Amino acid sequence: MNSEPKKTKKELNPNVSVDCVIFGFDLNQLYVLLIDSGNTEGYQQSRMAVPGDLIFDTENLDEAARRVLKELTGIENIYLEQIGAFGDPNRIGKKESDRKWLESIRAQPEARVITVAYYSLVKMPNFNPKASSFAKSAGWAPITEINDLAFDHYEILESALEQLKRKIKIQPIGFNLLPEKFTLSQLHKLYECILGKDLDKRNFRRKILNLDILTNLEEKQIGVPHKPSQLFKFNEENYEKLSLEGFDNFGF
Amino acid sequence: MNSEPKKTKKELNPNVSVDCVIFGFDLNQLYVLLIDSGNTEGYQQSRMAVPGDLIFDTENLDEAARRVLKELTGIENIYLEQIGAFGDPNRIGKKESDRKWLESIRAQPEARVITVAYYSLVKMPNFNPKASSFAKSAGWAPITEINDLAFDHYEILESALEQLKRKIKIQPIGFNLLPEKFTLSQLHKLYECILGKDLDKRNFRRKILNLDILTNLEEKQIGVPHKPSQLFKFNEENYEKLSLEGFDNFGF
Repeated sequence: MNSEPKKTKKELNPNVSVDCVIFGFDLNQLYVLLIDSGNTEGYQQSRMAVPGDLIFDTENLDEAARRVLKELTGIENIYLEQIGAFGDPNRIGKKESDRKWLESIRAQPEARVITVAYYSLVKMPNFNPKASSFAKSAGWAPITEINDLAFDHYEILESALEQLKRKIKIQPIGFNLLPEKFTLSQLHKLYECILGKDLDKRNFRRKILNLDILTNLEEKQIGVPHKPSQLFKFNEENYEKLSLEGFDNFGF
Repeated sequence: MNSEPKKTKKELNPNVSVDCVIFGFDLNQLYVLLIDSGNTEGYQQSRMAVPGDLIFDTENLDEAARRVLKELTGIENIYLEQIGAFGDPNRIGKKESDRKWLESIRAQPEARVITVAYYSLVKMPNFNPKASSFAKSAGWAPITEINDLAFDHYEILESALEQLKRKIKIQPIGFNLLPEKFTLSQLHKLYECILGKDLDKRNFRRKILNLDILTNLEEKQIGVPHKPSQLFKFNEENYEKLSLEGFDNFGF
């Protein structure tokens, strides 16, 4: 226990935090950016979490999310979208390892903390996390291998993934995640990774081509150990239009 | 200024509130449930707001939203969906009338408050608001006549409306808002009210019928002063299915 509150010059708000779920894609699978928030006395195991921390009273929520992500992982300049607030009264105090950690780091470890969660999806190789602040390490974990996280972070991760799944039903995805020239198989793989299930290839091709966001480059892959596939790029104008309007399938 | 904090037995969290945007539909237009949060000394004009208040430290956010809505307006048993958190550091302190009001009612009027917003859409005549707690009055205001609200509530209202517009692009709407037997014109009107624009009638009919959520009752309106229209009801099974899955137009 701390007799004196640990506060920076700017006041940390003891009741509100932000958490960032950053998904990464490397053409093969989906990853999540995790930090090891550090051992605490008597708890030797690592304590994996998504990057998050209390907000300053002078910053808005979006600013707080960007700052916290940068402080803990060095990652910046990515678009973070708010998922919503998580406010179970016991969300951070259920596990003893969480309580010990809070006591070791927070000025008011008993305070109730509501967190506002954000998410993003980035091209993984472009972002090399570097741990700092209370993060002992930071790195990309394959989503399929994550089964437990600090606090309610696993629940927040699930919620972020649901949001991402909903989003790709009404907006195109892939720009900035694939090479400039890509194959339909690569795009197909991205959708399969996000949705977490196999998608019929023929149906996928038909549907994605119907969106009119792809330009057939009339050229094929070079130097691949299999029959080279047709290369495509995104039609930026149409992609942008659908991103703004959504697929708008119902047509209003 | 208050020398002694006004607190109930349960502790109010000074930094987190909930706000509820309740849309009502009466077959003709869209309304919003507003309260007059009361005059404060030197401010004679009424102070319209959406129902909202600080949360208790013992309740989760959904519970807080339901409690606050009931306390201020008597309205209960409606499904509230979270929109997200609003956390501009100056969101409640910009206007002098807001600051005066906070001083008159809050134990810590200077505290920064992040709010978590919720929304719902209900059949208006079924819900008669009754003001209580600090609400001096509560009632339905036509959305087209609202142009200013307390704090950042106008911004929250706009955000809720955007959410509602996005929702009706991917999920059916109308159940519990229309009579059991309704005409396509009535459903058309509902969509126009939410989207705030005219929709081509013929296109609307074609699209809504394509969703396969309507059953043609093979009967017509009785006792109307115009040519009676065909009556429909929702096919509950298909409606439910699309509500869960979304229109899923991209087909995954």
